Amino acid sequence: MYIEGKNAIRQALDSNITINKIMVDKKYQGRKDEIINLAVQHKIKFEFVPKVVLDKKSKTGHHQGYIAESVDFNYCEVSDILEKAKSLGQKPFIVLLDGIEDPHNFGAIIRSCECGGVHGIIIPKNRAVQVNETVIRTSAGAIANMLIAKVTNLKDAINYLKENDVFVYACEAGGEIIYDKKIDGAVGLVIGSEGFGVKKSILPYCDGTIALPLMAKVNSLNASVACGIMVFEVLRQRLQGEKNAKIV
Amino acid sequence: MYIEGKNAIRQALDSNITINKIMVDKKYQGRKDEIINLAVQHKIKFEFVPKVVLDKKSKTGHHQGYIAESVDFNYCEVSDILEKAKSLGQKPFIVLLDGIEDPHNFGAIIRSCECGGVHGIIIPKNRAVQVNETVIRTSAGAIANMLIAKVTNLKDAINYLKENDVFVYACEAGGEIIYDKKIDGAVGLVIGSEGFGVKKSILPYCDGTIALPLMAKVNSLNASVACGIMVFEVLRQRLQGEKNAKIV
Repeated sequence: MYIEGKNAIRQALDSNITINKIMVDKKYQGRKDEIINLAVQHKIKFEFVPKVVLDKKSKTGHHQGYIAESVDFNYCEVSDILEKAKSLGQKPFIVLLDGIEDPHNFGAIIRSCECGGVHGIIIPKNRAVQVNETVIRTSAGAIANMLIAKVTNLKDAINYLKENDVFVYACEAGGEIIYDKKIDGAVGLVIGSEGFGVKKSILPYCDGTIALPLMAKVNSLNASVACGIMVFEVLRQRLQGEKNAKIV
Repeated sequence: MYIEGKNAIRQALDSNITINKIMVDKKYQGRKDEIINLAVQHKIKFEFVPKVVLDKKSKTGHHQGYIAESVDFNYCEVSDILEKAKSLGQKPFIVLLDGIEDPHNFGAIIRSCECGGVHGIIIPKNRAVQVNETVIRTSAGAIANMLIAKVTNLKDAINYLKENDVFVYACEAGGEIIYDKKIDGAVGLVIGSEGFGVKKSILPYCDGTIALPLMAKVNSLNASVACGIMVFEVLRQRLQGEKNAKIV
């Protein structure tokens, strides 16, 4: 996997991504350089190469003179996510992606999850986008702070969460309106794929189905936007809950 | 402007987009065909052409045998948006985009606005993405139901809204947390550009600045997701207001 450009590499160095080597345009040789300094600091090998080598390896066309070679993203276990919540003294808040396919959506979801205080994301191993270069780039650094677990079977993950006192809701049209629902406890939100929503086979494993009120004729929300709205409604209720606790 | 594929054309026919002509793969000649029926119904010229002609004109590579030729999108006036709210007996709810550049973000915003009950969107004429084919495609049909005004000067539009008793808020980091704010009246939300947020020169024209609470180290929300969350918070408060009104 290649990571291109200063920003993306800086973020990757600060994340769960293991970088083997950074290739730097040789015109930067001998200069003071932020990325080279970071490489030294992180004890990562770097080498100077002609620009044509970078151009050839680049998939984005925006390498800015820097391409990092990495092994795959270090996925975590679902239990790590619960552990993280516990270590923060917070009720677990988890997002499960049931087959998101577009890396841009996945990247945007990671950003929303970080901003909304989600402790980790669970994705299925098959028939779904994995963490790749586009996801890393689109996540704009948020991936550095997000635990992501990859599971063989989403149903097993849901059952595991339920055994650990997490309420798991499918986010799907026709569900109970989220604004009418108290959802500030330990919670997992299952977000469906772009085309098909949450799979019918997944629904029975969830504790319930929640939805957004829609003023449109059809549900035309983008999957990552819908996820962001849901995540922030949970956050709103959590913050409200904390405030009420203080007042009491 | 070309609109490609069955879905996009169906949506365009049902929208503010004026179509001049639809080109259809000649292998569909003589068959019962939904798009041809719609063309007849809308009194729009259609012609059968060899697939290679469509392939050559296609920018997406997914024309499915259909390409419509259209003139530009019919933008409305800001007053039309206020008029629409009035005709629905609702308080105006308007989104102003201060320099959104990515057509995918614009398309996703149109979807969120439709679902969130926004009456219209205002965009600046310059230095911002306009309604183009990508926007239409990404809006997934929502553009058919959304008024969009294009203005020379966003400040004048803000002043006009304020004269018409609409409260205009800039959505920008550092503002008052939206969840602590009563925002269920006539409201305009100014959403900043992907890279730079709301312009400093715009802020003094607004009635205030609102923000989302962010649990992340940096604000890494995608512009269209942030817009969606803001729009749905207004919707939530409006629905809550209606409920309370019923209870009283």
